[in-house]
This record gives sequence, C-alpha cells and structure tokens, in this order.
Amino acid sequence: MLKKFIPALEWLPNYKRTDLSGDLSAGLIVAIMLIPQGMAYALLAGLPPVIGLYASTIPLLIYALFGTSKHLAVGPVAIVSLLVLTGVSTLAEPGSEEYIALVLLLMLMIGILQFLMGVLRLGFLVNFLSHAVISAFTSAAAIIIGLSQLKHLLGVKLEAGKDVFKLLTEAFMRASEINPITISIGIISILVLVYIKKLIPRIPGPLLVVVVSILVVYGFNLENFGVKIVGEVPSGLPGFSIPSLDFNAFLALIPIAVTISLIGFMESIAMAKAIAAKEKYKVVPNKELIGLGLANIGGSFFSAYPVTGGFSRSAVNYQSGARTPMASFITAFLIFLTLLFFTGMFYYLPNAVLAAIIMVAVYGLIDVKEAKHLFKVRSVDGWTWVITFVATLVIGIELGILVGVGFSLIVFIGRSAYPHVAELGFLSEEKVYRNIKRYPNAKVSSDVIIFRFDASLYFANMTFFEDKLSERILDKSKTRWVVLDFSGVNSIDAVALHSLKELIMTYREAKVEFLLAGVKGPVMDLMKKAGYPEEFYEKITYLSVDHALKDIGLH
Amino acid sequence: MLKKFIPALEWLPNYKRTDLSGDLSAGLIVAIMLIPQGMAYALLAGLPPVIGLYASTIPLLIYALFGTSKHLAVGPVAIVSLLVLTGVSTLAEPGSEEYIALVLLLMLMIGILQFLMGVLRLGFLVNFLSHAVISAFTSAAAIIIGLSQLKHLLGVKLEAGKDVFKLLTEAFMRASEINPITISIGIISILVLVYIKKLIPRIPGPLLVVVVSILVVYGFNLENFGVKIVGEVPSGLPGFSIPSLDFNAFLALIPIAVTISLIGFMESIAMAKAIAAKEKYKVVPNKELIGLGLANIGGSFFSAYPVTGGFSRSAVNYQSGARTPMASFITAFLIFLTLLFFTGMFYYLPNAVLAAIIMVAVYGLIDVKEAKHLFKVRSVDGWTWVITFVATLVIGIELGILVGVGFSLIVFIGRSAYPHVAELGFLSEEKVYRNIKRYPNAKVSSDVIIFRFDASLYFANMTFFEDKLSERILDKSKTRWVVLDFSGVNSIDAVALHSLKELIMTYREAKVEFLLAGVKGPVMDLMKKAGYPEEFYEKITYLSVDHALKDIGLH
Repeated sequence: MLKKFIPALEWLPNYKRTDLSGDLSAGLIVAIMLIPQGMAYALLAGLPPVIGLYASTIPLLIYALFGTSKHLAVGPVAIVSLLVLTGVSTLAEPGSEEYIALVLLLMLMIGILQFLMGVLRLGFLVNFLSHAVISAFTSAAAIIIGLSQLKHLLGVKLEAGKDVFKLLTEAFMRASEINPITISIGIISILVLVYIKKLIPRIPGPLLVVVVSILVVYGFNLENFGVKIVGEVPSGLPGFSIPSLDFNAFLALIPIAVTISLIGFMESIAMAKAIAAKEKYKVVPNKELIGLGLANIGGSFFSAYPVTGGFSRSAVNYQSGARTPMASFITAFLIFLTLLFFTGMFYYLPNAVLAAIIMVAVYGLIDVKEAKHLFKVRSVDGWTWVITFVATLVIGIELGILVGVGFSLIVFIGRSAYPHVAELGFLSEEKVYRNIKRYPNAKVSSDVIIFRFDASLYFANMTFFEDKLSERILDKSKTRWVVLDFSGVNSIDAVALHSLKELIMTYREAKVEFLLAGVKGPVMDLMKKAGYPEEFYEKITYLSVDHALKDIGLH
Repeated sequence: MLKKFIPALEWLPNYKRTDLSGDLSAGLIVAIMLIPQGMAYALLAGLPPVIGLYASTIPLLIYALFGTSKHLAVGPVAIVSLLVLTGVSTLAEPGSEEYIALVLLLMLMIGILQFLMGVLRLGFLVNFLSHAVISAFTSAAAIIIGLSQLKHLLGVKLEAGKDVFKLLTEAFMRASEINPITISIGIISILVLVYIKKLIPRIPGPLLVVVVSILVVYGFNLENFGVKIVGEVPSGLPGFSIPSLDFNAFLALIPIAVTISLIGFMESIAMAKAIAAKEKYKVVPNKELIGLGLANIGGSFFSAYPVTGGFSRSAVNYQSGARTPMASFITAFLIFLTLLFFTGMFYYLPNAVLAAIIMVAVYGLIDVKEAKHLFKVRSVDGWTWVITFVATLVIGIELGILVGVGFSLIVFIGRSAYPHVAELGFLSEEKVYRNIKRYPNAKVSSDVIIFRFDASLYFANMTFFEDKLSERILDKSKTRWVVLDFSGVNSIDAVALHSLKELIMTYREAKVEFLLAGVKGPVMDLMKKAGYPEEFYEKITYLSVDHALKDIGLH
C-alpha cells in the first residue's frame, strides 16, 4: 500500500549492485554540472549563489524518494529562476533578506500547489500548453535571461530591468563604462564553453571555466581591477527554518506560483516521459506532481528556491548511465560535501563566468527552427508561435504565456466554428462517397444532396452549418432529399440538437426530407434524449450514406 | 449601387397601396404599445420618461431606411435599459444632467461600434453567445429588472442598488414605510395586465392601465397621498445636440458599449431571422448591424438612448399585419404627434403603473423551462445555464454573461480534449465497422486494432489520444496492425501532426504498423506538408477501413 505512494520503497530494497557503477558515474557528472549551474541560476533568480547549492540538496533527495521517473535530475533551472525573479522582484529588492524570505514562501506555495494538483489529478492541465506556445515562450524567455546577464558579462550596472529593448539601448549607451577585463573573461568563457561542447563533449566545460577563471583571478588579483567576484560563499549545510507567512505577500505571489507550478511541471514531465518511453517504464503525471510538490515543500524549509526537473541535466544523467534515482542521492551527497568543505574555493569565481554559463545554456533553448517548421505545415500554428514569442518579449513572461494559451485555444475554437464542409458524390470504383470538389468524377443525383459537415455541432457553428446547407439547397432547386453524413460529427450539444430539429422540421414543410447517416453512438444517445426518434423514426438511424440512399431507392 | 446600402430605395419607390392598411394598423398598435413601454424603460434606465419617447422617433426612421428586416420594431428594450443603468450609474447619478450626457455618448459609441462591426463583417461574433447562455442571462436580468422596480411599486425608497438579495432584505425591513395606495395601484395594474393578456388579448393592456390610472389619480388627487407621479413631461420634438466627448468617460464606457452592441444586436437578429424565415426573405446580419448602428448614431444627436429591435414589439408588429418598414414610419409619426400635443396627459401617470408594465413585460423572459430542457438533453449544457444565471444574479450582469460565454467555451474545449474513442469491429450483415462495445457481435481479428478517435487532433488532446491507443495496444499483445479510422478527425494542427508521426515511427520499431483510413481532404493536405507521404507512402491513403484491411489481406 505504502509502495503506491513512495516509489522508492519499490526500487530501494531491491537495489542491485550492478546498477551502482552507472548511478555513481551519472551522479558525479551531474554534480559537476550542477555546482556551477546552481550558483549561476541562483544569481539569475536574484539570490546569493549558495542558495543554488542548497536547492541542489534536500529537494533532490525528496524527489528521489517520491518521483516515478528513474532518470529525472531535479534542481534549479533557468526558466523557473527567471520566473522567480520576475514574480518576487516586484515585492522586494533582489538579494535582500526580505526577498529571500519571499522566495521561500513562494517555494512552499508552489510545492503545495503541485502536491494538491497531483492529489486532485489536475496534471492534465498542462495539455493545454501547446508545444508551439511552449517553444515560443521558452525562446523568448531564453533571450530575456541571456540579456539579463549582460550586466555581469560587461561589468556594467544596467538598471533597465527586464525590458529587452531598453536594456539593449542602455548597454549601448554605457559602452564606455565596460570593464575590459570582465568582458574578456566573459567572452573567452563563452567561446571555451561553445567549442568544448562541440569538439570535446566529454570534458565538462562549466567546471573547466570555473576552475581556470578562479585560478586566473586569484593569480593576477583581478578583483582589484574591477572584476566582480562571487566573494564569500558561506560553508555548511542549509539550516532548517519555517517560511514566514505574510498574507498580503501570499496573495501577491499566487499568479507567479501558479505559473511556476505549471511551467515547472511541464518541463519536468516532458523530459521524464521522453526518457521513460525509451526505457519502457511508466511515469505517472499526477504522481510526478506529488513528487515535485514534496521536493519544493521540503526545500522551502531548508533555504532552497523553486526546483523542477531540468531538461539538459536529465539528459546528461540518462546518457551518463544512471539506472535508478540512486544517482540523485549521489549528486546530492556530493553537493553536501561541497557545501561542507569546498565553498571557500568559489571566493574568486568571477560573476562574468556564471553569466557566460547561463548564456550558453539558454542559447540552446532559442528554437526558431520550430517556428519555421510550424509555418511550413500550418501557418496559423506558426502565428501562435510568433504571437507568444512577441507577447513574452514585449508584455512580459507571465502574461506572454497566457496570451499564447489564449490564442492557441482561439485558433482551435475558430477552426471548429467555421469548419470544412463538403458535398459528396459516389466513386463507383472505390465504392465510397467523397467530396465532389476533390473528386470531380464522383456521381451525384439531381434530387439528393449528400452533405458532410467536418466538425462537432455546437452553438458556435450551428449558424454556419445552417447557412452552408441552405446555400446548397437553394443552388439545387430539385432537391428532395438531404443525406447528412454525420461521420464527422463527433459530438453535439443541446443547443445544436434543438436547432437541427427545427431545421429539419422547417425543410420538411418545404418538401425536403432529411436522412442522417453514420450517426455516432454518443451523438445518437443525445438525439434520443432530445426526442429525435419520436419525430424522425428510422430517418436518423442509417449506418452509412449507402444505407440511406438504398432506402430511398437510389442505390 | 446605392440600393445595396439603403434597402429603403428598393421597397419605398415600389410601395403598394395594398400594403398600406396592414402597415397602418401595425404602426398604430405598436405606437400604443411603445408609448407606455418607452417611458417605463427610460425610467428603468435611470432617465426621464420623455427620453424613452425621443428614442422611439429618429432611430425608428433611420432603421426603416437602412435595415434589411421588414418587420423589426426598433426602440427601447428592457435588457438594454438595464445595461445602460448598470454601466452609466457608476459614473454619474441617474437622472442628472451629467448622466444623460453620458448616456448619449454611450449611444454614439454603441452606434459606431455596431456600424464598424457591420462594415468589418464581425456579425459572426454573436454566434459565440450560446442560446443556453442568452436564456440564462435574460432570465437573471429579468429578475434584476423586476426587483429594480420594487421601489416604484411599493412607493418606498430602496438604496440597495442592484444586489438582488440586499434589495429584498431592505424591502422587507422597510415594509412599514410602504405606501398603501401606491402598492394597490401597482398590484391592481399587474393583475389587469396579466388577465387582459390572457382573456382579452385584443385590448392593449398597458394603454388601458395608463389611461385609467391617470384618471383615478387626477380624480382623487392621489398625488397628495404620497403616490409618486411622472409629473411634467416636456412637450415638443427632441432637439439636436452633439454628444460631448469626455475621454475618461469614453474609456470607462467601452466595456458596457461592447456588451450592449453585442447583446442588442443578438436580440435584434434573432427576431429578424425568425420572422424572415416565416416570410421567406433574407436578412443580412452585417447589414443589420449597419442599420442598427446608424439608428443609434442618429439617436445620439437627438436626445434618445440606446435602442435595438425588441422581441415582443416586433412580434406584435408582424402579427398586426405589418408588410413593410412603412409601419415603423407610422409608429414614429404617431410618437411625434404624442410629443407635440399629448405629453401633458401623462402628468398624473403614477410611477407604480410604469413599474407594473415593466414587471409584467420582463416576467415572460424568465425561462426556467429552457434550463429543464437542457438538463434533460445534456446536463453540462444545463450547468451552463445555471452558472450563467447565478453569475449574472450574483456577480453582475456584465460579468455574468462573460462567465457564461467562458464556461460554454470551456465545455466545448473540454469535450474535444477528452473525446470519445472506440475500437471497431466488422458487422458482416450491414457491411460497416462499428464500436465493439455497442455491437458486441462485430468481428475483430486478434492482430489488428481498428481505432476511431472522435475529435479533431490538436495539441490539447494528443496526449489523450496516445494514452488511449497505447492502452489498447498493451491489452492486445498480438497486435501487428493498427488501422486508424480518421473519418472523425476533421482537422489537425501542426503539433498533433508532429506527435502522430513520432508515435507511428516509435511503434514501427516495435513491429506495429499503422494504416490511416478515411483521411479527409484538408487533413491530407496538411499531412503532405508535414512530410507524411515520404515516410508512410500509401499507408495513409486508404479511402476506408475496408480498403486498408484488404491491403493487408484481411478482407
């Protein structure tokens, strides 16, 4: 029974020694990747770097116990960090005591939200985030993140906040203030990261630039030449504290908590599903929500900040041979060791290097190819991408994604309000009925219209249906029968049932009889409730167009 | 050419004398109905009664020239009056100079909006107002309107505004202040109106109670016993004035202007279409918008207030024998005469009688039967009714309708995100493929799954599709072929095209081949753009399930 709620009780007692070598090497590699990334993302979130390390300990352990994915690497990620900055920086000065307290409250809220969503089986909500919307949102957020690091890369104070265009202008205006050593460190780091990834992918680029830059700054005392460094990183494990509940702050944080809960979960579940499909095991979305939720709740008591399953780190974890969540235990253990013994080593780490790591990491998230692909296949989906992208850049990241979701649903509704319709004719060779516009040799009779409506009938398209049908009947004055091919009518609502009945009755007075063919089970059930059989008898029961035409002696 | 824009140029020069008697009698009867109703609705809108008469002159003439309906009776209506009160009373004290000026600005805005919507062919927008939503909204608004008249009926000052529950409580608390003569006049008027309508429908009840009550108040000097009367009604035609443009007021009025434009148009077009269908002529929705828009624009320069085509007056107009818009000319002419010579007669008209007229008129709009019917047919549509109704009563009439529209669209989206799916089998007698759950004798093979998905494929239901399909394949371990019956897939988006392709490729590795049958033209077009033929060749081109099965040698 308990195993259902704690998946670790399933794999931990049966842990095989043969799995250990893979888990060990994956755990180590992810830890090496996570140390610089965790500090960098914490900086991006407006927090002291050490909080990024704290977020890489307790939450990992909790997820390893409660998560259903064997390979997901939980921890700080770029998009969530940006969302934290966006949401909390309107309430307190980034880096301040108050700011950190609010972030912990936010983390607790996210955890509770995700946990509740899991318990209430609301995981399906992420299905409404179309891939086009996510791709555009992520691309725009990556640009915002990249530019937010410009100040660290250039060694210049920029005050324009998150407005991309103002930020670029300001950076340009202050070009004279750029610190030449800082920008050199930044650009060299970027080049090293990019080329190592391409040429010698086995070497962990972030670790390399971190180590080398620390040595260089220390060796040449570059901190005295205006190079900003990380400075004192407190050593020791994260302490226990209870997030302080401020009711007004709680209210103000609700929107960002909802956004992070959903976006974080989406990033997580997408990766977890992809790896699970390859390894043929099952991840359960609602249990994943519970696992992530508990990880965030736990973290909020140990000075962490919101975490989720990271895309690239999970991929690295999987590719480095991880077999079980034991790999995450090992990663967390190594971060604990770092916190206990090695924090002093980061004193001379230049901020520009962390900025370079972030910039290179998020550059890969900009996915213009996807937009091109969407335009090629169906241009309206391409527009969904463009609108979400522009809205995220211009209006802001929280509203941007809402605009995207709204637009993508409007596209869907619009499509079903003005669906494709077709008049059908008979293809005698293939013995099927098809659109006479696409198959000009399809046979039609002068007194029958075979009409197919390619959408579920509901209040918003009933008028369109009536108009299109009336047009055909007016065009074909000899019409005595209308056969409605209902194979595309997947469902029907009460409003449409009522209008359709009236329509058939009206035309009956004008001596045009309606026959309904291929009505699907669920639609027929509703027709029965709406009293169709009492009015139309067998006229609505034909299993196919063929059956209907035979009945009126035409086939 | 000009005739296209001014339908009157079509019928006016060809006016037949034979139409005159019908138009005359209808024009007269509508005028008799309109005089008390116009004054009553103006009172409801927070305006002096004479403005209701002004609104029954110029707008009628303009609509008669530009409208495409021959029978629509334009003028003040209850719901629009309530919306005017709701929207403008937050900005100025009802009845004040400022209030009247704002109403004229609002009317101009509504006119321009409707005109532009007509020119831009946006009339289709009203299709998104489901009949269930409108019925619930109207029912709730009718209750709010009825209760808003309570103060006139009781002769008590009530200050609770539009909150239905507070209003009732307050009325109850102030029961001792009720003016016994006022309430007697009110209740007797209501009884007379109800019974005359039922027993002697030929007698115009409103006119009767107006005339009798004026005589009674005048005869017994009841105004000295606390009976509130209409008082001085200025005589003379409405003067010309230009609506004053206040930018802040303009901004504040936008939401209510949009609401009235749409609701007004909807009430209008529904009635116009119903009569046109009976009389076999065509009303053009976008031209109707232009006609109504011009009527409102014109009215805003002549001290009127927002008008639209009324439901009950249009029905009376039609039933009384109106043949052309000439009937509206006659109505307007009679109102002009009233304004010139008979306004003095209304001095002693008690407000309680106008309240009684409103209450009886709106009582008929409460349509609980519709809710019952919806619950019977499809309960979720019944819930749409209930939610819209409650939201309109509790949250307010503008937000109420938005909640209704939102909920009805969510219902539709929810339905298509979790559609019906079926595994099909062959009915050898009827030679069709149907759901094996409904037709247990349908034949199935152990190595083929024939799968039908009853919805268009798009981002929000792709996960559901994959899950349902995987379940079936896991259940049936011998599966070698999956035939997807695409007859219900009316459209597909780029996201779904991508996922579907990946799905088929993944299963191909697991030695399960997919065949797509009955793919519709528009869907096939998109599959071509997404590169399906290069990957799957003829496997996506089967015209029917039968063709697909023949190809793998199963039929």
